[in-house]
Amino acid sequence: MADPERVWTAALIVIGDEILSGRTQDANLAYLAKWLNMQGIRLREARVVADDMAAIGDAVTAMLACHDYVFTTGGIGPTHDDITVDAVAAALGVPVVLHPEAEAILRAHYGDRLTDARLRMARVPQGATLLVNPETSAPGIRVGNLFIMAGVPKITQGMLAGLVGKLEGGRPLLSRTVGAWVPESQVAELLARTEKAHEGVQIGSYPFWRERRVGANFVLRGVSGDALAAASADLLAGLRAMALEPVEGEL
Amino acid sequence: MADPERVWTAALIVIGDEILSGRTQDANLAYLAKWLNMQGIRLREARVVADDMAAIGDAVTAMLACHDYVFTTGGIGPTHDDITVDAVAAALGVPVVLHPEAEAILRAHYGDRLTDARLRMARVPQGATLLVNPETSAPGIRVGNLFIMAGVPKITQGMLAGLVGKLEGGRPLLSRTVGAWVPESQVAELLARTEKAHEGVQIGSYPFWRERRVGANFVLRGVSGDALAAASADLLAGLRAMALEPVEGEL
Repeated sequence: MADPERVWTAALIVIGDEILSGRTQDANLAYLAKWLNMQGIRLREARVVADDMAAIGDAVTAMLACHDYVFTTGGIGPTHDDITVDAVAAALGVPVVLHPEAEAILRAHYGDRLTDARLRMARVPQGATLLVNPETSAPGIRVGNLFIMAGVPKITQGMLAGLVGKLEGGRPLLSRTVGAWVPESQVAELLARTEKAHEGVQIGSYPFWRERRVGANFVLRGVSGDALAAASADLLAGLRAMALEPVEGEL
Repeated sequence: MADPERVWTAALIVIGDEILSGRTQDANLAYLAKWLNMQGIRLREARVVADDMAAIGDAVTAMLACHDYVFTTGGIGPTHDDITVDAVAAALGVPVVLHPEAEAILRAHYGDRLTDARLRMARVPQGATLLVNPETSAPGIRVGNLFIMAGVPKITQGMLAGLVGKLEGGRPLLSRTVGAWVPESQVAELLARTEKAHEGVQIGSYPFWRERRVGANFVLRGVSGDALAAASADLLAGLRAMALEPVEGEL
């Protein structure tokens, strides 16, 4: 029987010199994190690596050893700097092959305009299956529990849409937020005490400065809605006992 | 004599459950990447890890072994989930101590309002020096070539400002951009040929869809301005030879 307490974890490998040079701001991590939470899977770690065979391969090998699922973004386009497929295949010790279905998809989409460069996008590590790309046709790639996706957020999101409900996961991570106009240091003890009193609930404290005032949002996370509700009620009561006026939800 | 060709590298470790849950979008990576480029240092890798002693410690150990400099962001505030100092100290095998100068800074800033929770922000791994924080006083921490910074971007940026020109680096990475309204696949061969012809120049291709048209920016990177200029001229000529009208700079 499946263990209801089992936590399913995932890692993301963001591939691209443009991220590490600061030219492009990654937008896939936050999206994937929320998407995974809805599937009952936790994003536990992310790595950003260069367009470099060894860097990609090492990250893939390390992350596959630690997590149930591994996702990569970037480096699967038609140009010379798109080396993700080659790097993954080398890391897995399998050859790169032309996937007949991927080729058919590209032929249908591009017709006469299917150049050699575009045909590169039908190359996959041997044994792979495809992820549908409703945006621009060139498919993503699945090899076991490794998912190779595009770097362009809209394309990545389209590929994830096709995976909804298809990955085995556990209980979704729930969260509740309590906000208060208070320096987080002033309630540090209350936070620690509340977290300790409610097993399975983690509390994160996220301070901000706004309207010339100091405040903080306290995010309670856990898989049990009841435990979260109880911890949240305790925290609200504790804040009110300090003559604060906390809000349920984010400030 | 210093090797003028030596490449100095850095890694960033982003610490925080709020990043991995998708609640907060990291903004420090891109800023640090550009800041490092100006110091002649390359950001070669980044890792995002949870608020977890082992995860932080493992990342610190691994990154210090591979890079000249390692930066961390997040987890140095006054609350129970701020465990970066403890995790780094454990990874380095040194005790956590109260830094007298950090304590003095906090006393001067908070006066009577210096609670035990706030005093936590004067804890450092033994042997550390301080990074000035012009925003909120609580200092960052330097231990050898490891820099422990805040998660809040404005505070991080203030800490980096105090480090300008103080880290040994090599030649800054320069870049030039050429833009064209063309599918990148159509010029894939030209890009590969141009890169090959100009040693030390890397070309990245970044496609986009805008105004219902397909285009791409080609970013040439390298340490030699002359090599970049030559490669850029070749690429422009190659694009014009295909009856395209490329622009110098980003589209």
